[in-house]
Amino acid sequence: MRPYEKDPTAIYAQSFATVRKEARIERFAPDMQPIITRLIHACGMVEIADRLAYSADVVASGRAALDAGAPILCDCEMVAAGVIRRALPADNRVVVTLNDPTVPDHAQAIGNTRSAAAVDLWADHIEGAVVAIGNAPTALFRLMEHLDAGWPKPAAILAFPVGFVGAAESKAELAANPRATPFIALRGRKGGSAMASAAVNALSIGATA
Amino acid sequence: MRPYEKDPTAIYAQSFATVRKEARIERFAPDMQPIITRLIHACGMVEIADRLAYSADVVASGRAALDAGAPILCDCEMVAAGVIRRALPADNRVVVTLNDPTVPDHAQAIGNTRSAAAVDLWADHIEGAVVAIGNAPTALFRLMEHLDAGWPKPAAILAFPVGFVGAAESKAELAANPRATPFIALRGRKGGSAMASAAVNALSIGATA
Repeated sequence: MRPYEKDPTAIYAQSFATVRKEARIERFAPDMQPIITRLIHACGMVEIADRLAYSADVVASGRAALDAGAPILCDCEMVAAGVIRRALPADNRVVVTLNDPTVPDHAQAIGNTRSAAAVDLWADHIEGAVVAIGNAPTALFRLMEHLDAGWPKPAAILAFPVGFVGAAESKAELAANPRATPFIALRGRKGGSAMASAAVNALSIGATA
Repeated sequence: MRPYEKDPTAIYAQSFATVRKEARIERFAPDMQPIITRLIHACGMVEIADRLAYSADVVASGRAALDAGAPILCDCEMVAAGVIRRALPADNRVVVTLNDPTVPDHAQAIGNTRSAAAVDLWADHIEGAVVAIGNAPTALFRLMEHLDAGWPKPAAILAFPVGFVGAAESKAELAANPRATPFIALRGRKGGSAMASAAVNALSIGATA
């Protein structure tokens, strides 16, 4: 078998250098460069750089919220598993309500998915929180319904639901009307929990290893 | 806000129908269709169907192993978090050694990454196991080194390491010489824990919801 790179520092450095070069990262605002670099690094796809929608304040707002101790609300356990806890600036809580025992019955009651029902349990946490959605379009749709109905605003919505039903539509809706909330979203079908976690990690630590 | 699909059964059915149609899934062997469908569903990318490398026996071997109670060895917590536990046929163990307290020192000792060092702790579990790699190329490289050195064979290697350093190379090495082990791998830079989990879930439950 041929030799391979075994030094983690070299792997990160070489990876991020490749991403920055191929994505021509310098065309993005300085504070967006780390998050875009980490998003590309997480999925192996340079081309997503051209499909991101975001508000100019998303990194500043999300970072300030984390510094102030805001919780991170995730739509699924995979996103939470990808958050690098030791990098969080204020030992922030990582909240996943999807497996709360009340969720299945509540989903039935509201005629929606478990992922959407789980969002209803964010009511007491949403104000100023960082939201990371890496799986379910219905979680993003449900959150927007609540914001339209008057929920307090989160500090940032990191929107990476994935798939063939509702993913593109939910992110297009958010990008067209972000409800005065700082956000970043990957347009189209692509997304996933690794990207959602990467966005959180970029707010914590930037693009260095 | 426009209406959106809220019925989980309809969402799954419509998603899988879209995947099957766009990927022209019928061109694949019947037992490969569920795993390819779930892999595409997990990432939102139909085009990966044309970049998969696999041995013809991977689904039969992996499924038989799960039925017989084999453990699932994952390279990171995100892969483990995506395995649908209730669907496992024999309440199979899901093993992640990455955060074992001995790993950092062992990584230093062997001059490799923590992900590679964690693979060394699979020695007692590897025979007949299902391996799911969704993050680290060095985990896959290290596993192949051990197989070359005489480790007993796993029942299946589900190889989806992702990124810019070693991901394409490690999967090309596996595809070129699978060490007489059933395998499936996504060629190139793309991959991720959601795909690795989806492959495990497909072995458990096929492509139905």
